[in-house]
Amino acid sequence: MFISLTTDFGDAYTATCAGVVYTIAPAATVLVLSDEVTPYAIVEGAMLLRQALPYLPRGVHVGIVDPGVGTPRRPVAITTGRGDVLIGPDNGLLPPAAERLGGAVTAHLLENPAYRLPEVSSSFHGRDIFSPAAAHLAAGTALTDLGPEIDIADLVRLDLPAPVIGDGELKATVLYTDRFGSLITSADENDLTSALGPLRHGTVLEASWHNGTARLPYEATYGRVAKGEALIWTDSSGLLGLAVNQGSAAEHFGLGDGAVLTIRRALAH
Amino acid sequence: MFISLTTDFGDAYTATCAGVVYTIAPAATVLVLSDEVTPYAIVEGAMLLRQALPYLPRGVHVGIVDPGVGTPRRPVAITTGRGDVLIGPDNGLLPPAAERLGGAVTAHLLENPAYRLPEVSSSFHGRDIFSPAAAHLAAGTALTDLGPEIDIADLVRLDLPAPVIGDGELKATVLYTDRFGSLITSADENDLTSALGPLRHGTVLEASWHNGTARLPYEATYGRVAKGEALIWTDSSGLLGLAVNQGSAAEHFGLGDGAVLTIRRALAH
Amino acid sequence: MFISLTTDFGDAYTATCAGVVYTIAPAATVLVLSDEVTPYAIVEGAMLLRQALPYLPRGVHVGIVDPGVGTPRRPVAITTGRGDVLIGPDNGLLPPAAERLGGAVTAHLLENPAYRLPEVSSSFHGRDIFSPAAAHLAAGTALTDLGPEIDIADLVRLDLPAPVIGDGELKATVLYTDRFGSLITSADENDLTSALGPLRHGTVLEASWHNGTARLPYEATYGRVAKGEALIWTDSSGLLGLAVNQGSAAEHFGLGDGAVLTIRRALAH
Repeated sequence: MFISLTTDFGDAYTATCAGVVYTIAPAATVLVLSDEVTPYAIVEGAMLLRQALPYLPRGVHVGIVDPGVGTPRRPVAITTGRGDVLIGPDNGLLPPAAERLGGAVTAHLLENPAYRLPEVSSSFHGRDIFSPAAAHLAAGTALTDLGPEIDIADLVRLDLPAPVIGDGELKATVLYTDRFGSLITSADENDLTSALGPLRHGTVLEASWHNGTARLPYEATYGRVAKGEALIWTDSSGLLGLAVNQGSAAEHFGLGDGAVLTIRRALAH
Repeated sequence: MFISLTTDFGDAYTATCAGVVYTIAPAATVLVLSDEVTPYAIVEGAMLLRQALPYLPRGVHVGIVDPGVGTPRRPVAITTGRGDVLIGPDNGLLPPAAERLGGAVTAHLLENPAYRLPEVSSSFHGRDIFSPAAAHLAAGTALTDLGPEIDIADLVRLDLPAPVIGDGELKATVLYTDRFGSLITSADENDLTSALGPLRHGTVLEASWHNGTARLPYEATYGRVAKGEALIWTDSSGLLGLAVNQGSAAEHFGLGDGAVLTIRRALAH
Repeated sequence: MFISLTTDFGDAYTATCAGVVYTIAPAATVLVLSDEVTPYAIVEGAMLLRQALPYLPRGVHVGIVDPGVGTPRRPVAITTGRGDVLIGPDNGLLPPAAERLGGAVTAHLLENPAYRLPEVSSSFHGRDIFSPAAAHLAAGTALTDLGPEIDIADLVRLDLPAPVIGDGELKATVLYTDRFGSLITSADENDLTSALGPLRHGTVLEASWHNGTARLPYEATYGRVAKGEALIWTDSSGLLGLAVNQGSAAEHFGLGDGAVLTIRRALAH
């Protein structure tokens, strides 16, 4: 059985979770998808899971970005149309990934103490609740044994800023900054062409934000512009972003998460 | 057989050690517990091993934070009451973890060249001595074949600052700073209640240090205080620490490893 | 089958590649050698692969530092004398490692769409082309099915600065800076003794560069000098370097990649 772990814990705490999994399910294949989510950044973690899980084997995927650990937020297991189980806190982290995996089908609370570690700390539910649940599922425990079913309509959802498609302009919000400093927005290519009409690569666009503006081409990939030059492109998860070839768009433009970009066709100079 | 690796090497050198293990013992399950220990920080590494290894499967655990590599410090294998083998330099890194795993039972030097790589470099014993020893053990080699037994009483021990339990006050030293910036001390909850008497969560304490002081509640978990607020709590390894909810206590208080905290009940304002 | 991954992607994108591998070849053993190569640093990645792969099991090794992704640079698979297959972009990253693994034997382009993901993005060939190719090879696909053979003489090679052996002096260029801040050069111990004659450890050398000079001993290992002191030594890959015991030579000397060092025997003070 395949188990992935995605956390904001750093390597040692995440590997401790892997150790709990291996203790309970020694034959599991465990992959750390990331242990470097920005601490407490639920949206970043949700976007990462949404982007990556479709490329991982069907299995049990544990996602933990959990500023509410130790408070009454609920630990849940969500099954998906593809046949995965997503495990983590009910704080909005998991549903966007579930949508990409065929949709959420059922949800259960993780309440049965038989499938937690004997002692549950107040601050490390990754180790004490989520990882044991994942490992027990991998080892054959039925989901219904973990705890009562809840209505998937009651799962906490993120309130992500939707792209706004205007007449000749698209408003998109930066959801997160990737490892290369690229600014990834909430809009995709369809949103762009809905707002601006059909677009050929190489078309020059204008992006503006509260205190700045830039002209930059719409290209298929970094390598189409010179080193240090900026572009608008569709990243590998299908989202529109601003990038700088071999550089950081975040630094180049002084922008970060939450920035609202208005994108239009550029006027000729 | 389960093998874990914990180092201050960064990812590539640590994965090279994993490669050596897989070459010798292809069927081993290898988990990198951490490759991000602060370089040369033996105490931090020792605390991490002590905290995490009880949650990993019984197996061979390699720990390498080794500022003395290439000097006459001894490479050792220590067996534990739980049935693990701990492998690394004899510099104090391993004994605290051994104590948590049922105590050190035997210790052997890693001297047999048959279980080292053919060429041993002077600066990368992780690759050339420690990992091959671990892999050969996993593949069935007897511990006694690795080298002569030594007295466990002769193993190098860390001189950790013990908590000082006073009449109504506890002195505790910060041992390390965790990924979230929390300050983890040498004292545990028993030390605290021995010094201050039975404590209910929510009780306000006073922590003071050489040039500062703070009032902060004793809580079960971060989430019990507002974002940005500080607390005293017991971390997931059972040690007392200072934390800030969704923030860094190290930055908040300007404190780090080695700081001595005096903790008392706060007077009413 | 053993598969390693080495990238400049960070952990989540690299683990996504591992997920693609596990999806296609569930029984593969996957090791991330590094996901922390400095972004776009082909030379650093090439040196890492060259240094580490000889210690990994024979298998399929994917290396991706690929500033040209999305441009016409070719995706290739190179077989080695040891029996490995190296997979990545044809930009010079792979040949130095191939030389250490018995030399490049054959090279094939990765052109067959049957062994790519159904949709190939323009910016994430690690996920869409390289990882599927590696996994299909591990699962039994013949190399000749991946695409046409090309002449290994036509592979792109790095133009690395060769050491210059003079009469009593060696000129060596810093190729990269390692995790500890040590400056690793293009020269090895043979180059040094060819230039300076037989050298005993402890001999004091002089290193000079465009705007500085230093006296420092030639030692077997860090631990032979006091904490904070500098030395010249042969690193674990056999290359000459400048290091500082428990410190960073890069910071100590203010030097980095590309610096040219002239190394001589020091005159007596």
